[in-house]
Amino acid sequence: MRVIGIDPGLRNLGWGIVDVSGSRLTHVANGTCKSVGDDLAQRLLSLHSQLELVFNEHQPETAAVEKTFVNKDGAGTLKLGQARGICLLVPAQMGLEVAEYAPNSVKKIVVGVGHADKRQVDHMVRLQLPGVVPNGPDAADALAIALCHAHHAQFNGRLDAAIARAGGTR
Amino acid sequence: MRVIGIDPGLRNLGWGIVDVSGSRLTHVANGTCKSVGDDLAQRLLSLHSQLELVFNEHQPETAAVEKTFVNKDGAGTLKLGQARGICLLVPAQMGLEVAEYAPNSVKKIVVGVGHADKRQVDHMVRLQLPGVVPNGPDAADALAIALCHAHHAQFNGRLDAAIARAGGTR
Repeated sequence: MRVIGIDPGLRNLGWGIVDVSGSRLTHVANGTCKSVGDDLAQRLLSLHSQLELVFNEHQPETAAVEKTFVNKDGAGTLKLGQARGICLLVPAQMGLEVAEYAPNSVKKIVVGVGHADKRQVDHMVRLQLPGVVPNGPDAADALAIALCHAHHAQFNGRLDAAIARAGGTR
Repeated sequence: MRVIGIDPGLRNLGWGIVDVSGSRLTHVANGTCKSVGDDLAQRLLSLHSQLELVFNEHQPETAAVEKTFVNKDGAGTLKLGQARGICLLVPAQMGLEVAEYAPNSVKKIVVGVGHADKRQVDHMVRLQLPGVVPNGPDAADALAIALCHAHHAQFNGRLDAAIARAGGTR
């Protein structure tokens, strides 16, 4: 199963793709989409086009997008919301289901603690995906989101297998 | 010139289309896109598809989207931001320029005062577009946004004409 993780942002939108095969995780690609254009609509269009290219090139089968931390900076929340709309739209247009994880859940699953800092996240991403070179902090975060989604999928797979062995259904 | 006005919303997204010919304004169509789907990505996809249909059917030449009022409700701002991202994306995908107007500017231009209430906006929309029946309050707001953009375009047209008569350029 090929998983894409997306870290929404209007200026820098991180993405990371991981292959999951049983308990094996392999890095496929990662990068950062940077919005270009004179106005907001053009910038959102440029993010949409770049993300669409990533999906067409790597054909992920499932997607996970980071839940946005809502703070008191209303203008910042609005900007991020607009970019996040694009991040949710593109996988839905490709017919994929889109999971959402809060930043703390991602850190908890990937690092082990919910309040891990960026350095710890980067360290664990490199440890779990040997040889990976994240294209900046947003791409590293996106890889962490992909890993979190992969671990969830692995857990659900094992759960389904255990339930099937017991002759039940979930 | 055919103008579309869009009032962003995740649940109800209003749209209204007006033809501008010199000082004449004519109502073309208006409506409300309602998001359907189990999760946020599906709802955004449904808004995108419905709005794309409106653009394909009515072929507007310029678009205006209401600027979102940012308040202290972070979760609400984020939801609206995500829907607003779609409202800006669709016209940009069609190659149109997208103008943005604050709610108070729309009211000031259409009603005459920035603090006009919904009833006054609805009244002025019906007065300026005889025979129009807005499809609910969001569609009425969207028509007001289209009127605001049309008045701006008319003003700019008259300004350009006056400058040309004086032998200058803007």
